[in-house]
Amino acid sequence: MKQRSSESRGRIMTTTPHRVVIVGAGFGGLEATYRLAGAPVDITLIDRRNHHLFQPLLYQVATASLATSEIAWPVRHLMRDRREVTTLFATVSGVDATRRCVLIDDGSEVPYDTLVLATGARHAYFGHDEWEQFAPGLKTLEDGTTLRRHILVAFERAERETDPARRAARLTFVIVGAGPTGVELAGTIAEMAHHTLPGDFRNIDTTKARVVLIEAGPRVLAGFADDLSAYAQASLEKIGVEVVLGQPVTEINREGVVFGGKLLEAKTRIWAAGVRASPAAEWLGAPADRAGRVQVEDDLTIPGHPEIFAIGDTVSINAWEGKPVPGIAPAAKQQGKHVAETIKARLRGAATGPFRYKHAGSLAQIGKRLAVIDFGRIKLRGTIAWWIWGIAHIYFLIGLRHRLSVALSWLWIYARDQRAARLITQGSSKVVG
Amino acid sequence: MKQRSSESRGRIMTTTPHRVVIVGAGFGGLEATYRLAGAPVDITLIDRRNHHLFQPLLYQVATASLATSEIAWPVRHLMRDRREVTTLFATVSGVDATRRCVLIDDGSEVPYDTLVLATGARHAYFGHDEWEQFAPGLKTLEDGTTLRRHILVAFERAERETDPARRAARLTFVIVGAGPTGVELAGTIAEMAHHTLPGDFRNIDTTKARVVLIEAGPRVLAGFADDLSAYAQASLEKIGVEVVLGQPVTEINREGVVFGGKLLEAKTRIWAAGVRASPAAEWLGAPADRAGRVQVEDDLTIPGHPEIFAIGDTVSINAWEGKPVPGIAPAAKQQGKHVAETIKARLRGAATGPFRYKHAGSLAQIGKRLAVIDFGRIKLRGTIAWWIWGIAHIYFLIGLRHRLSVALSWLWIYARDQRAARLITQGSSKVVG
Repeated sequence: MKQRSSESRGRIMTTTPHRVVIVGAGFGGLEATYRLAGAPVDITLIDRRNHHLFQPLLYQVATASLATSEIAWPVRHLMRDRREVTTLFATVSGVDATRRCVLIDDGSEVPYDTLVLATGARHAYFGHDEWEQFAPGLKTLEDGTTLRRHILVAFERAERETDPARRAARLTFVIVGAGPTGVELAGTIAEMAHHTLPGDFRNIDTTKARVVLIEAGPRVLAGFADDLSAYAQASLEKIGVEVVLGQPVTEINREGVVFGGKLLEAKTRIWAAGVRASPAAEWLGAPADRAGRVQVEDDLTIPGHPEIFAIGDTVSINAWEGKPVPGIAPAAKQQGKHVAETIKARLRGAATGPFRYKHAGSLAQIGKRLAVIDFGRIKLRGTIAWWIWGIAHIYFLIGLRHRLSVALSWLWIYARDQRAARLITQGSSKVVG
Repeated sequence: MKQRSSESRGRIMTTTPHRVVIVGAGFGGLEATYRLAGAPVDITLIDRRNHHLFQPLLYQVATASLATSEIAWPVRHLMRDRREVTTLFATVSGVDATRRCVLIDDGSEVPYDTLVLATGARHAYFGHDEWEQFAPGLKTLEDGTTLRRHILVAFERAERETDPARRAARLTFVIVGAGPTGVELAGTIAEMAHHTLPGDFRNIDTTKARVVLIEAGPRVLAGFADDLSAYAQASLEKIGVEVVLGQPVTEINREGVVFGGKLLEAKTRIWAAGVRASPAAEWLGAPADRAGRVQVEDDLTIPGHPEIFAIGDTVSINAWEGKPVPGIAPAAKQQGKHVAETIKARLRGAATGPFRYKHAGSLAQIGKRLAVIDFGRIKLRGTIAWWIWGIAHIYFLIGLRHRLSVALSWLWIYARDQRAARLITQGSSKVVG
């Protein structure tokens, strides 16, 4: 992509600064906004949520380990000191690329000179959307509290159930998909059942709960090195997770999950198997892959629209030494940074280059004092990996207050197996009976 | 009420312990359970929520100051080491006093020898139930997060509103009822508008938000001494709250609140004016006052049913030197303690006596460094009262973890006016547009 110095030089000299609209305040959108600090631009940051979510720890909300406010920040507050940034809490319904404006669902429009689409992804059910009602996924804070309610209510209902088969179904937790989220959910639910809950119930033995992790592929944590996958699987099995590999799920219904031609009765089913990009590609009529991800140019612009960038989970790009960039937070942040630098270079009339992804490493927590880290040449496992995992995640949180709060919550889980956020909310009275 | 030693003596000697069923895990029910520790009883503690809620700080959830998990505890976990206590997460639909069993809404029954009803109260609209949809009240955690969403969304919509009158209506917050909850809500919303939010918005000046506290009676904090009421009113006005006294609200609708024959346009209306007891009296066909509160005997038993106690906000009793016992946490706890001691005395065959309420004092926070405390002879106001208020509330939280967490949250609000729980959740994408 050539630099567009003719346009940018013009903009710099006018009194109206270059208008950048960023849709999505996830890792990519936020990083782009941060990196544009000091540039001669006016920024509008639009999100349909009022908060930035630290998605890598969302499974800890679902498993009652962390409170919602410990992994979320009001976007508006993060941009408090950036007077050139306007935060808009609104739902985008489309983009008019000809007139260069973003369409809001209330009928209003936000004009742009440069547009950055960082709209993320939702979980996808591979053409089986009807499975969603039986196996919720995990993307938003509400997904987290909904899943938390499912898990906690399952134990409560098992406590009151007298029929052994039905009780067993209540105490069976199936997680579909053994990527990092699936592994972390399975490991944490097993920890809860074995260490947090046992003393609290009178009729059930929560350590008898079955946690089943089902993966269509041949190993858990496919993005990690083979030996770390094997270690993760062994660790999961040691803490009580049943790992089922090479078994695609063929049916999910209110009774349970079908794989290998058999129904496993389970009242709690969690989907961690696939995502689908947000409709950014549809808004633009841009080429997309099967998962709906925009196929962007090598500088992250939309083909034919050098003034529109797309980043993060909503795009597909082979910028990792020719391989696809993984859908993880550091990748979105690197892309956000690249976009900001490209915009700044254009405004200066300087040359811009393609995006190149640098993989810092892959991390996954399996359970207490159990994690795997794949830095490429260096591979870590067990307690040392777990400490690095914890310290890294606290480091990446925004602000001292959240860091102290999460550290406090983890200290209590570590020392006393006590999870403070064991709250059944959102119509709790309705789910019983 | 006479002691019932004939029954109790028999129970002590049998191998089946005396069965106590406690409905409601609020302050009263929890205290009764705690105080029965060591007694020869089997306890079933039933609540339709899985958590005990520290209601005195619920307004801080509504105003984004505290996270839900900071003021709630899983009941089951609190009773972890009490092997004789069974916690039941269930909704009670009635009581069969003849067959001595509690009816659960799933059709099951829980038999009792002694029953303790500690089922609390909901807000009441004095015959105007249709007002509830326009002016929500504050009793449950969900009420807290719902109100938080209302308040935060009001500012968000005002930021996007271009019509001055509609913007003013978005930025007008009406609180009906100037008891402690109303005063604390009004004061905290004013603090938010003046100190937490100003830098975060670009189109609106949040310090121009109107916070209007309407009270039908002649003064705020009617339960406090006259001079403390006057001080509280002056303090509220100093931090930007408009106080309207002697004005009953005659209408609440989607436009605003009508009082004194005039409509005040306001998109956020909060009900803090009245409560109605839970249907315990109806379950028993017992005599009740206008607010639905059971009129209990002087030992807190139901007339004609010495084996059934009722305590807390669900009862009406003139046990405060002949005056009605106030509907506050310490009163419920004293009643719970009295019931536990009466049950234990009966089981020992000892004499029991009437309940007498001892008033320790009344506390209300008005704003930062502003509170009033009425200890009877000693009255405190301002900064010293605020510190005592804060320390007392942290002291009454359960467990070191919650105390540290709340202290951390308050430290950030105190030092930086930063409220961590500014999250719009529960269908957030739907409320915009």
